Amino acid sequence: MEIYREIYLDKNSPQHLYMQLFQKIRQLIIEEKLKANQKLPPIRQLANALGVNTSTIVNAYSLLEKEGFVYKKIGSGTFVSAKQDDDLSDELLKKYPLDEDIRLMDRGQIQIKENMISFASATPTSDLFPVEDFKILLNEVLDRDKGDAFGYQESQGYYPLRESLVNYLEEINIKTKPENIQIISGAQQGIDVISKALIDYKDTIIVESPTYTGAIGTFRSRGAKIISVPILNDGVDIKILEEKIQEYKPKLIYLMPNFQNPTGYSYSKEKKLKIIDLAEKYNTLIVEDDYLSDLSFYSEDNTTLKSLDRNDSVIYIKSFSKIFMPGLRLGFLVIPKKIHHRILAAKHTSDISTSGLNQRVFDLYLRKGIWKKHIRYMEKIYKERFDVMKSCIDKYFKDIEVQYYLPQGGLNFWFSLPEGYDSNKLYVEASKNNILILPGSIFFISKKESKCFRLSIASVYPKDIEIGIKSLSNVIKNLIEKDTNKRKRLDTYTPLL
Amino acid sequence: MEIYREIYLDKNSPQHLYMQLFQKIRQLIIEEKLKANQKLPPIRQLANALGVNTSTIVNAYSLLEKEGFVYKKIGSGTFVSAKQDDDLSDELLKKYPLDEDIRLMDRGQIQIKENMISFASATPTSDLFPVEDFKILLNEVLDRDKGDAFGYQESQGYYPLRESLVNYLEEINIKTKPENIQIISGAQQGIDVISKALIDYKDTIIVESPTYTGAIGTFRSRGAKIISVPILNDGVDIKILEEKIQEYKPKLIYLMPNFQNPTGYSYSKEKKLKIIDLAEKYNTLIVEDDYLSDLSFYSEDNTTLKSLDRNDSVIYIKSFSKIFMPGLRLGFLVIPKKIHHRILAAKHTSDISTSGLNQRVFDLYLRKGIWKKHIRYMEKIYKERFDVMKSCIDKYFKDIEVQYYLPQGGLNFWFSLPEGYDSNKLYVEASKNNILILPGSIFFISKKESKCFRLSIASVYPKDIEIGIKSLSNVIKNLIEKDTNKRKRLDTYTPLL
Repeated sequence: MEIYREIYLDKNSPQHLYMQLFQKIRQLIIEEKLKANQKLPPIRQLANALGVNTSTIVNAYSLLEKEGFVYKKIGSGTFVSAKQDDDLSDELLKKYPLDEDIRLMDRGQIQIKENMISFASATPTSDLFPVEDFKILLNEVLDRDKGDAFGYQESQGYYPLRESLVNYLEEINIKTKPENIQIISGAQQGIDVISKALIDYKDTIIVESPTYTGAIGTFRSRGAKIISVPILNDGVDIKILEEKIQEYKPKLIYLMPNFQNPTGYSYSKEKKLKIIDLAEKYNTLIVEDDYLSDLSFYSEDNTTLKSLDRNDSVIYIKSFSKIFMPGLRLGFLVIPKKIHHRILAAKHTSDISTSGLNQRVFDLYLRKGIWKKHIRYMEKIYKERFDVMKSCIDKYFKDIEVQYYLPQGGLNFWFSLPEGYDSNKLYVEASKNNILILPGSIFFISKKESKCFRLSIASVYPKDIEIGIKSLSNVIKNLIEKDTNKRKRLDTYTPLL
Repeated sequence: MEIYREIYLDKNSPQHLYMQLFQKIRQLIIEEKLKANQKLPPIRQLANALGVNTSTIVNAYSLLEKEGFVYKKIGSGTFVSAKQDDDLSDELLKKYPLDEDIRLMDRGQIQIKENMISFASATPTSDLFPVEDFKILLNEVLDRDKGDAFGYQESQGYYPLRESLVNYLEEINIKTKPENIQIISGAQQGIDVISKALIDYKDTIIVESPTYTGAIGTFRSRGAKIISVPILNDGVDIKILEEKIQEYKPKLIYLMPNFQNPTGYSYSKEKKLKIIDLAEKYNTLIVEDDYLSDLSFYSEDNTTLKSLDRNDSVIYIKSFSKIFMPGLRLGFLVIPKKIHHRILAAKHTSDISTSGLNQRVFDLYLRKGIWKKHIRYMEKIYKERFDVMKSCIDKYFKDIEVQYYLPQGGLNFWFSLPEGYDSNKLYVEASKNNILILPGSIFFISKKESKCFRLSIASVYPKDIEIGIKSLSNVIKNLIEKDTNKRKRLDTYTPLL
C-alpha cells in the first residue's frame, strides 16, 4: 500500500481525478514498480487512502483494464497484467486490424513517458495545428451561417467547399469539376466508401506489399480477396502487376504512388504512365491514395496518377490528416463519372454527410489562402526534420547492417534488418531505451515475423532525431551482436522486402 | 432573353453569385415561366446580359443540371428538364437508396418556395438549433484543449463524453459503463458499423414493415437478405415475428420500439418484453434504433428495449439528429460485451474516429446541464405542434376516407388512402397546393405503389399546420372524387398496411 500513498491527485487540475489516477498507476506498471500479477488495492481502501470517491477508483481501474494494463478476476480483485510489448503484434492485431498509429496510441504506448522519442507516429504533434486561425474562421462561419452550419448537408459535400477544392486541385494539375468531388470524413472513410460502392463479395483487390494497414482491414471487411505486389524503390514491379491483373482480374488496384506508406518510396514517372496504360488495357479502376504528395522536398516528380488519368479510371483519395489536423476527419475523393451514383449512395449509407461545420470552416480556410500559408509552414518544419534525419542515418546507420533506400520527401523511412532478425524484437528493445519504432510486420498481408521497420519524423523534434537515431543504432548493434546464434550470413544480396 | 434581364444578382450579398443565379433560374422553372425543353441562353450571352463572369453562369448551369432542373445536349446547349415530380419515386430511388429527408432536400424539393408547408422533413428547422450556446462551449473547448481537440481521438470515442453519456442513460433506466459505449458519426453510421461488424454475405435481417429507408440501404449493401414483419399500432406482430425467426434464423432484428419511423406507432410494454424473450429464446441480437423516445408527450410507457435487456442482447442506437443538430453527425451505441471488439474494429475501418471537436463540445453540453434545458425547450416547441396537429387531423380528416391511428408522441403521423389510391399521386397534387408530404412507398422493401403517406411536424410552425392540413384534406377529397373510376369500395375492413 505504501507505493499508492505517494500518489498525489490534484483536485484543482482541469483533468479528471480518475484520469490522473489512471496515469499514475499506468506509470507504476510501466516502470515495473508494480509487477505482473500483483494485486491492486481494494477499491474502498484505495479511495480512503487517497481521500477520493470510490467512483474515481472504479473509473481508473476500468480504464486500466480497457488499456490492458490490469485484468480482473471475479471475486478476487484487480491484478497487473503481464508485460504488454510481446503480445502487441499478435493478439491485438487479430482483434483490431487498426491503423498503425492509432493502435499504438490507443494502447497508450506512444506517450507512455514524457521523454520517449517516437518514430512510430506518422501524425503531426498537436502543437503544429493551426488552432488560432481555425478558431477565428469557426466563429466567422457561425456568425455567417448560424443554424445552417448544423443542418444536414448535401451528401456529396458542401458545394462551395467542392469549388474551393477544384481550385486547389488545379494547382497540382488535376482538372476537375465540383460534381466529381465527394467530401469524406477522412481518407479511411474514402477507402470504406469506395469499397462499399464497388467491391462485391469475393472480388479481388491488388495492393502494394507492404501497404497501409487500414486499407487491408476495410477490403477484408467486404469479403474481398487481397493480392499483393512487391513495391520496389521506384514503384511496384510492373511485370508482376500485369501478371496478377491477368490472373485475378481485380476490381480495384490500391496504390500510393508518392512517398508510399510505409516505405516512403515514390513511383517513377515512367511507372506512373505504365499504371495508367494497364488500367486502360485491362479496364480496371485504380485507387490512388494521396496522403502526402504535398511534402516533396527533393523529389523531381510528384505527379499524381490522377493528373495523368486520360481515361477517367483513377479514383483519387486526398487526406489532410498528415499535414493539417487529423481530428477534423475531413478529406475528399475525385471520382470517375461512371461511378458517381454508386459512390454517392455508399457515402449516404455510411454517415449521410460529413460534419457541415468542419466543411464550412475548411472552405474558408482554403478561400482565404490560409491553407497555403499553413502548408508552407509545415513544409519548413518537416523539411528541417527530414534533413536532420537523412544526415543522422548517414552518420549512424552507415556501420550497422541495416539496409535502406532513402526517399526524396514525405515523412517515412523504411529499413530492413539482416535476414533472420525480427523487428518486433527491435521494437521491444528500442522501447527500453525510450525509442518507439514501428515494426514492419503490420504492413504485410500475412502478418508474420518481419525484418523491416518504419521510422517516421512526423512527431519528433530535430534535436531528438539525432539522440534517437544514435541510440537506436546502438540498440540495433547490440541486438545483432547479442544474437549471433540466430544470425545468418548474408552471402547473397537480399532485396529489401 | 427578356425574362433573364429581370434577374437581379446582388454582388454585395454574402451568397455567391452563381448560387443566387441558380436559385433565380430554378424559381423560373418551378413557376413554369421557363417551360420544359426550352433552351437556356448561351453562357457568354447571359454573362454579358447580367454583367458577370462566364464562370458564374457555368456554375449555376452545372448546379441546375445536378439538381435535375436542366439537361445538356452536347453541341446544342442547355435545356429545361421536363417536370420533376413524377420521376421522383422511381428513377431516383433506384439510384439513391437514401434517407427520405435528404433525398428530397438534395433534389431542392423541400424549400422550393418560401411559402411551401413541408410535412415531409422529420428534421428540425435550423432556427431551433442552440447555436449560441454551442458557440460558447466550442470556444471554451478550444481554449481548454487547443490542438488536442484536433488530434486523432480514441476510436471508441472521447472518454469523458462516454462518461457523460453513462449518466444520461442512467436517467432513462439504462445502466451501463463507458466501455460499452461506442461514439458514432450519427445513427446512420451506427447502422453501418453494426452491419459491418456482424452481417456476413447472405445473412438474414428482420425489419419492421414499413421501416427506415436508410437502414434498408445499408443492410442491402452488405449483401443481406431482408425479411419484413408488418407493424401494428402496438408493435410488430409477435406471432409472425417468431415464425420468421424460426424460418430464417436472422443475424439481427432491427426495430424502432418508440414512435417508429414512419408510422409513429409505439410497442406495448408487453410486446417489448416478448421481444426480449424471443431474443433470448433464439439467441439473436436486437438492434434498437432510438431516434425519438425523448418526445413522449402523452405516452404512458416509452421504455426502451435496452432498459429491459437482461441478457445483453440489445444493441442500442441513439441519434440526436431529430432533437438537436443533425449536421453535427454525432450519436452513440450501447453495445453488448460479446461484440465489443468487432464493433470497435468496424468503427475504425469506417472513419477511424468521430470528429473530436464535436465530441468534446457535446460532452460539455451534457456536463453543464445545457442539454436538459435544450430538451425541455424542444419538448415545449414540439408538443405545441403535436397538439395542433392532432386537433387539425380530428377536424379536417374526419370526413375524408383516410385511415390513421394517432401516436402518443414523436413527430410522425401515418395515413392510408383508400384501396387503389396512390400516395405518389397525392404527393404531386399536394405540391401543386404548396404542401409537401412524404409518399409511403419509400418505406417498404418492395418499393411499389403505396396508399400510405407520412406527415411530420418537425419543421412546420403551428399556424402552418392548420393551413396545411386543411388544404391537404381538400387535395385528398378532390383526388378521391376526381378519380372515381379507379376507386374501389371498401366493403371490408382493410388494415392500415
